Amino acid sequence: MRGGIDLGGTKIQAVVVDDDSKVLAQARVPTPTDGGPADVSEAMAGALRTAAHEAGTGTAQLNGVGVGSPGAVDEEDGTVSSARNLPGWEGTFALGKDLGGRLGTAVKLGNDVQVATDAEFQLGAAREFDSVLGVFWGTGVGGGIVLDGRPWVGRGAAGEIGHVVVRRGGAQCPCGRRGCMEAYAGRGAMEAYARRRQARGEHTVLFDIMRKRGRERLTSGVWARALRAEDPMAVSIVARAIRALGAGVASAQNLLDVEAVIIGGGLGVRLGEPYAARIAAAMQPHLFLNMQPPTVRLAALGDLGGAVGAALLAA
Amino acid sequence: MRGGIDLGGTKIQAVVVDDDSKVLAQARVPTPTDGGPADVSEAMAGALRTAAHEAGTGTAQLNGVGVGSPGAVDEEDGTVSSARNLPGWEGTFALGKDLGGRLGTAVKLGNDVQVATDAEFQLGAAREFDSVLGVFWGTGVGGGIVLDGRPWVGRGAAGEIGHVVVRRGGAQCPCGRRGCMEAYAGRGAMEAYARRRQARGEHTVLFDIMRKRGRERLTSGVWARALRAEDPMAVSIVARAIRALGAGVASAQNLLDVEAVIIGGGLGVRLGEPYAARIAAAMQPHLFLNMQPPTVRLAALGDLGGAVGAALLAA
Repeated sequence: MRGGIDLGGTKIQAVVVDDDSKVLAQARVPTPTDGGPADVSEAMAGALRTAAHEAGTGTAQLNGVGVGSPGAVDEEDGTVSSARNLPGWEGTFALGKDLGGRLGTAVKLGNDVQVATDAEFQLGAAREFDSVLGVFWGTGVGGGIVLDGRPWVGRGAAGEIGHVVVRRGGAQCPCGRRGCMEAYAGRGAMEAYARRRQARGEHTVLFDIMRKRGRERLTSGVWARALRAEDPMAVSIVARAIRALGAGVASAQNLLDVEAVIIGGGLGVRLGEPYAARIAAAMQPHLFLNMQPPTVRLAALGDLGGAVGAALLAA
Repeated sequence: MRGGIDLGGTKIQAVVVDDDSKVLAQARVPTPTDGGPADVSEAMAGALRTAAHEAGTGTAQLNGVGVGSPGAVDEEDGTVSSARNLPGWEGTFALGKDLGGRLGTAVKLGNDVQVATDAEFQLGAAREFDSVLGVFWGTGVGGGIVLDGRPWVGRGAAGEIGHVVVRRGGAQCPCGRRGCMEAYAGRGAMEAYARRRQARGEHTVLFDIMRKRGRERLTSGVWARALRAEDPMAVSIVARAIRALGAGVASAQNLLDVEAVIIGGGLGVRLGEPYAARIAAAMQPHLFLNMQPPTVRLAALGDLGGAVGAALLAA
């Protein structure tokens, strides 16, 4: 048995898997919003302890644990730097060593988006392909790349598909730049845009649904419900996001010419197949080889893909 | 000795190189504008015969010949399909076999932009790097990719950086789509834009220079001269091209995170270092890792890079 932990800005997802990567148990806890890296590490350990207990074992008995982390991950040193969505994590923290101490087993780190892509490549929707682009549509838009069966990470920061420019001089992106795909398609930017449109007097049920469901943010579930209610603002903002995804993912495809594009992420998984098909359609007018588009599929591992992919690091 | 031929839409460049890829002789002829693939093949053979003669040998004595070709190149079959810039070449032509027959030696084919990138990687400006993006700024804008020391060609069509979208819904591209980088930065699109601005009554010396130099097109030399004369229209159109290159190449870098970007192509080589530096500066506001930009360099092999790279195919 191995453990896998997907460390997100909102939640920590832990799984315990068997040697075939089958999920035996899982646990989810909210990511601490204050404190520092050690508090996050303890919350991660807690989630994995719960999952291990449910799988009838202890964390020290696991054959290693993998972690998919945001920020700049140094796989060799086992450190994570500049994880700006996590509390007090502007600097460098030796997460591998710290968490390994708490769990009593070896911990390996990887980039969160890359491990989720590897999971889809090895176990999920992209199993029959050799070259894959993973597009993770959530708060931001992350990308993972597999070429010739191997992850491509560049100098460590490849796959920033959210920051492919789709409109030079366009909308302000949470990253501070302008016209990035994420400025239109990231759930964070979509919420900011919805708030601006509401402040200008435009009606929407988005924030009513948010409050009714006890949320402080427009979660993927809130967007899904507003779309189901055919809320005009939600429909128009999602359509705008899909146009940006179409241009940005097609640009990536024109450059990489991969066999398959896998659509995952909180919003991607929640909105599901019909929206993956809409992204594929929105790519079409921008594809250089428009007669040979890549296969576009929804991520098969859903919400657990990141944690299952992290567990692959310990395989 | 080996031969290399760069087959372009305007000219055919042939070289004969020694075992260290040193150029012993070279010859250049215009690409036939009518006839068909066999006529182009004969013109290629003629150019290489001239170069071989100058190198004191015959083409049948060469240890193979490589060709960098536009269109869809099938390296294994030795065929080129859909080379739309070449006369009567909409279909598939067995260029390897045909040209090999004319030359009396084996012919290997590769994609024109990819062989030029490989040449810069193996012999030119990118020798000390393992991952390289070649950007060939000419009539169109082509891209070549080397990752981990190996060319990345995707399903055969990777590297179409000219068709990365920099402005969704933007300018019409020669490819028929909208907002591609090439719609702003390709010399073909730049000329069309200059003609439209002149037709609207705007003054420029571009077409005067063109006529004085006996050209029918705004060649790279014409643009260089107009820039030297500080022609306002030329300055503004080149600045617009550089803004598009900045956004498009930075997008590619955000995705690939390579060590080096090499700027080549007719216009890139002609305008030289100061303009490569301007492209690097224009990338900066769009780079996700703006503190760790890639090294941006001018192609070191200049005009002969494509032919020298083609000769590597026969090495």
